[in-house]
Amino acid sequence: MNKPTLHTILSPQLLNIYDVNNSIVVIIDVFRATSTIATALYHGAAKIIPVDSVELCIELGNSTPNSITAGERDGKVIEGLQYGNSPAEYPRSFIEGKTLVLTTTNGTKLLHMALANGASEIITGSFPNLNSVCNYLLQQNKNVFLGCSAWKNRFNLEDTLFAGAVINQIKNYFTIHCDSSLMAEQMYQLHQNDLYSFARSTTHWHRLSKFGLDKDLEYCVTRNVADVLPQYHDGNLKVK
Amino acid sequence: MNKPTLHTILSPQLLNIYDVNNSIVVIIDVFRATSTIATALYHGAAKIIPVDSVELCIELGNSTPNSITAGERDGKVIEGLQYGNSPAEYPRSFIEGKTLVLTTTNGTKLLHMALANGASEIITGSFPNLNSVCNYLLQQNKNVFLGCSAWKNRFNLEDTLFAGAVINQIKNYFTIHCDSSLMAEQMYQLHQNDLYSFARSTTHWHRLSKFGLDKDLEYCVTRNVADVLPQYHDGNLKVK
Repeated sequence: MNKPTLHTILSPQLLNIYDVNNSIVVIIDVFRATSTIATALYHGAAKIIPVDSVELCIELGNSTPNSITAGERDGKVIEGLQYGNSPAEYPRSFIEGKTLVLTTTNGTKLLHMALANGASEIITGSFPNLNSVCNYLLQQNKNVFLGCSAWKNRFNLEDTLFAGAVINQIKNYFTIHCDSSLMAEQMYQLHQNDLYSFARSTTHWHRLSKFGLDKDLEYCVTRNVADVLPQYHDGNLKVK
Repeated sequence: MNKPTLHTILSPQLLNIYDVNNSIVVIIDVFRATSTIATALYHGAAKIIPVDSVELCIELGNSTPNSITAGERDGKVIEGLQYGNSPAEYPRSFIEGKTLVLTTTNGTKLLHMALANGASEIITGSFPNLNSVCNYLLQQNKNVFLGCSAWKNRFNLEDTLFAGAVINQIKNYFTIHCDSSLMAEQMYQLHQNDLYSFARSTTHWHRLSKFGLDKDLEYCVTRNVADVLPQYHDGNLKVK
């Protein structure tokens, strides 16, 4: 039997090179959207509605019962929204049963692009839910695209490292002719035992740590501490 | 004094994210355009005219004295042209004093995009002319973009490894806040002592080795065997 294929997409701006039709796309935004999504769902959030504009976030927040609005730009809660983009803001005691309307830039953009390009399934991945992502991909027998959200379309290492972590676990079950994937896996192998210290050398870490987010970032490179599978369907991310 | 900046662009499709105005752009197309360009100039070619269409290649070949036309698609000389894209086709006994009108896809496209985006200087880089590229960049005190030609806009490892080789030599003289550059250098450091065997695992090698080009590819990852600096000016690449 032919194995399904696996590719890694290093930036939303490279998505259109690939044919994602009928494939699973994994949206990766390690710092911090997909880490926060996994964490809020792991702690019992009813669902998460990812939106790309502040206006829509407020509108949906007003019209959705038991919901909260959240989003950050440059490490600060956006004016008009209630909460930020930190996984630490969403413990079970606060988020259980609630709907989180979340606006992010890079991750939400990629998610909507993947949908527009015909992806048949969309899930989100981050180190806190690494194993759930791998187990799901192994069960499906479908072509896979690991989609790095990047930063304003620029390649980033943290998303690439997560792609590499997935490849490192599941590569034997896929056909992989993709230099991006080969690179991602080697970068992960190189740093799998020092993810935290290596992540401190990335450009995004420097950008965010200015806002005192070191604890957050450390959490975001910790494996399997919020191990659920967020799946996108009809505008919502819910636990599969 | 502030150091100039250095960035690595992993695909022509990511060029427009960066402001290349007044900067030096290094065009990198390791398999095989920029390796062939360095080699032909090292062996005494008068100049090289890079063009993006077969029609223009033939037209310029007809109108330029003492010129030859060259270009390949899928490892074969293009119908209507005289020679291919192999550095081995251009020994001194053949190419000295001649003008090479060369059509390539990925490299020429990136070169024209960099020009259109306002790059003030364009040079070409490959392992055979690594030291010349590094020495020149160190002398200029200008911002630098290492531009990987990629393959049909897909990230490739051989161009990235060359970017990493440059960074590895000159990084202390530049300000580098760029995850692409950090990754490229680490991939180069990981493989600098086994470039040939590692390159055999890349997707492009598999694509080209089907056409019996292993010797060519081995040459293309050999450092400093054609150590000249090809510089683009008014439509021509000449030795600086």
